[in-house]
Formats: sequence, structure tokens, C-alpha cells
Amino acid sequence: MKRDAQATRQRIFEAATAEFARYGIAGARIDRIAAASGSNKAMIYTYFGSKDALFNAVGVEWISRNMNDVPVTAHDLPEFAARLFDQYQKYPEMIRLVTWAALERGPEANRIGPVLISYQGKLQAIRQAQEQGVVSDRFSAETLLELILALIRLDPGLTADPADRDEPARRRRAIKEAVARLAQPD
Amino acid sequence: MKRDAQATRQRIFEAATAEFARYGIAGARIDRIAAASGSNKAMIYTYFGSKDALFNAVGVEWISRNMNDVPVTAHDLPEFAARLFDQYQKYPEMIRLVTWAALERGPEANRIGPVLISYQGKLQAIRQAQEQGVVSDRFSAETLLELILALIRLDPGLTADPADRDEPARRRRAIKEAVARLAQPD
Repeated sequence: MKRDAQATRQRIFEAATAEFARYGIAGARIDRIAAASGSNKAMIYTYFGSKDALFNAVGVEWISRNMNDVPVTAHDLPEFAARLFDQYQKYPEMIRLVTWAALERGPEANRIGPVLISYQGKLQAIRQAQEQGVVSDRFSAETLLELILALIRLDPGLTADPADRDEPARRRRAIKEAVARLAQPD
Repeated sequence: MKRDAQATRQRIFEAATAEFARYGIAGARIDRIAAASGSNKAMIYTYFGSKDALFNAVGVEWISRNMNDVPVTAHDLPEFAARLFDQYQKYPEMIRLVTWAALERGPEANRIGPVLISYQGKLQAIRQAQEQGVVSDRFSAETLLELILALIRLDPGLTADPADRDEPARRRRAIKEAVARLAQPD
């Protein structure tokens, strides 16, 4: 029975991820999540309480699963950026969930405990690399981290061919090169 | 009568902008737009046809009003980026509308005629500056433009104080400095 409950919870998590990533918080429908996970609305409400709470649970689960996949390599920030980009390419749901949360709940939505802890760790590593002179201190550590987080959202461009399979690799190289230029000590 | 119709259309445009910026396409409610603009649902459907068509009309109107506010200055790309950032700060609805469109309709949503024409004009100006050696050709013109468009979305950072009134000015300087580093010829 316990294993069944865990399997059900996992199926709900997957269906909820797909639903929230596609439709956002307001647009998500619990009955579609129930149908897609072979459960039912009552069970979802029993497990999670509400649609908003389910969204939070999905977010926290994603964060705890993937947050430490890409440890900061402050001595090689271009490589760090490239691996963050790879992670976004691998999990397009992730960036959609974060974007919906920011749009629907405001910029504070993503300021939650585990995210802040991971963020502070990254800042500390970058600060250390700056003190060692390996990374430029033209930008503060926080600004540099935010510049990287902005750059990894680089779009392919309006005239890019959607069928071009080499396009993500070119974008990855551009991000690495851009971060190298920003982080290079003077 | 004609002036009345124009005034009504303008009020609907403003109410629809606020509603779509806040709730997105799926989340927007025509009855709230009707109430906020002092019109009624039937009138909105008569003018615009459907909620989707109203969203398109709002988008095209925003584009035609603001697209040429920030002409590209290819010889001074940092200043171009700073002025784009100012425009985003001035019209936060704009970036929200674009983000909703991309989330709800996919990345092709913003590939519409007037946007593409303006985009091509910017590319051409950057290419010319590259040929003149004023701008680095390490990145293609399109990649450089997309890097700028990514950078102007720079977030203040998770540990930034939301009450800090100097924060946007610091972000503006960081964007200028970052673009200068990317565009600088080798």
C-alpha cells in the first residue's frame, strides 16, 4: 500500500508538472491532472490541499531534485553558464514554471528558502574567485550571477530557422563567450 | 459619434492592456475589461471579434506605438541597451505581454510583420557597424542583438532590497558595462 501511495504521488507530480508548465497556475485544471495521473480530484486535494499548494509542492520538488545538478565553478564561469544552459534545454518545464510563478505571483515568488541558500552559496564562491583575482570585480558577485542567469535565457533570434539542429550548440558557444568576456579580469 | 467610438476604443485598449498584462491570455476576462472600460461585452466582441483577437490588437497597438521609440544606435550599443532598459522600466506591461504571448502561444508568437521589419533594420545597422570595425564581429549581428535583449531583462537579484530606489540605476549601469564588453572590437 505504501509503495502504491508513493507511485500515485509520483504520477501526480509528473502530471502536475506538465499541466502547470503548459497552462500556468491560474490556467491549470486539477481534473486534467487527475485524469493524466490516473487518480482523482479528491485524492489530489487530500494529498496537497489546494491547487496553489500543489504548485508549491511541484516547485519545491523540482528545486530539491535539480538545484544542485549544476554546482557553481567560480573559476570557470563560462562552463558554469553552459551547464546551466544545458539544464534548461533538458528541462524546459523548469524555466516555464519559474516564469509562470514570477508572472502570476510577482518577483518574490522564487525567493524561497532552498533557492536562497543555494544562491548565497554561489555568490560566496564568485566573491572568493574575485578576491583571488580570477574573476573580474568590475561587477558585484550578485550582478555577475544575475548577468549569467539573464544570458542563459538567450533566445535563438527571430530569423533563426526552427529546424536548425545545430542552433542550440551555437547559442551555448555564444553564452560561454559572452560570460568569458564579462568575467575576465581587467 | 465618431469621437465617442474612438474614445471607447481607447478605453477598451487601456483596460485590455492592464487585464492581459496581469492575467495573461487564458486568464483574462472580457467582462472585467468591459467593466473597467465602461463598455460591455457585446461591444468588445463587435469591435474585436474574440478575446484572442483583442489580445492581438493590443499587441499590434503596443508595437506600433513603442517599437520605434528606441532606434538602434549601432555605434553606441551600450546606450541602445540602456534606453531599451528604460523603456521596459517605463512600460512593465510590455514585457509581461510579450512573456505571456511566448508562454501561451509559443516562441513564434512574437514573430509578426512589424516586429520582424524593425528587427531586420536593427540587424542591418549592427552588421554595418561590424563591417566598419566599430563593433566586434566575434558574435553574429543576430546573436549580439539577442544578447542585448537577454541582458536588458537583468533581474535585481534575490538578495536585492525591493525598497532600494537606486537599484534600477545600478542595473542600468551594469547592462551598459556588460554590452560594452560584448561589443568592444578585439
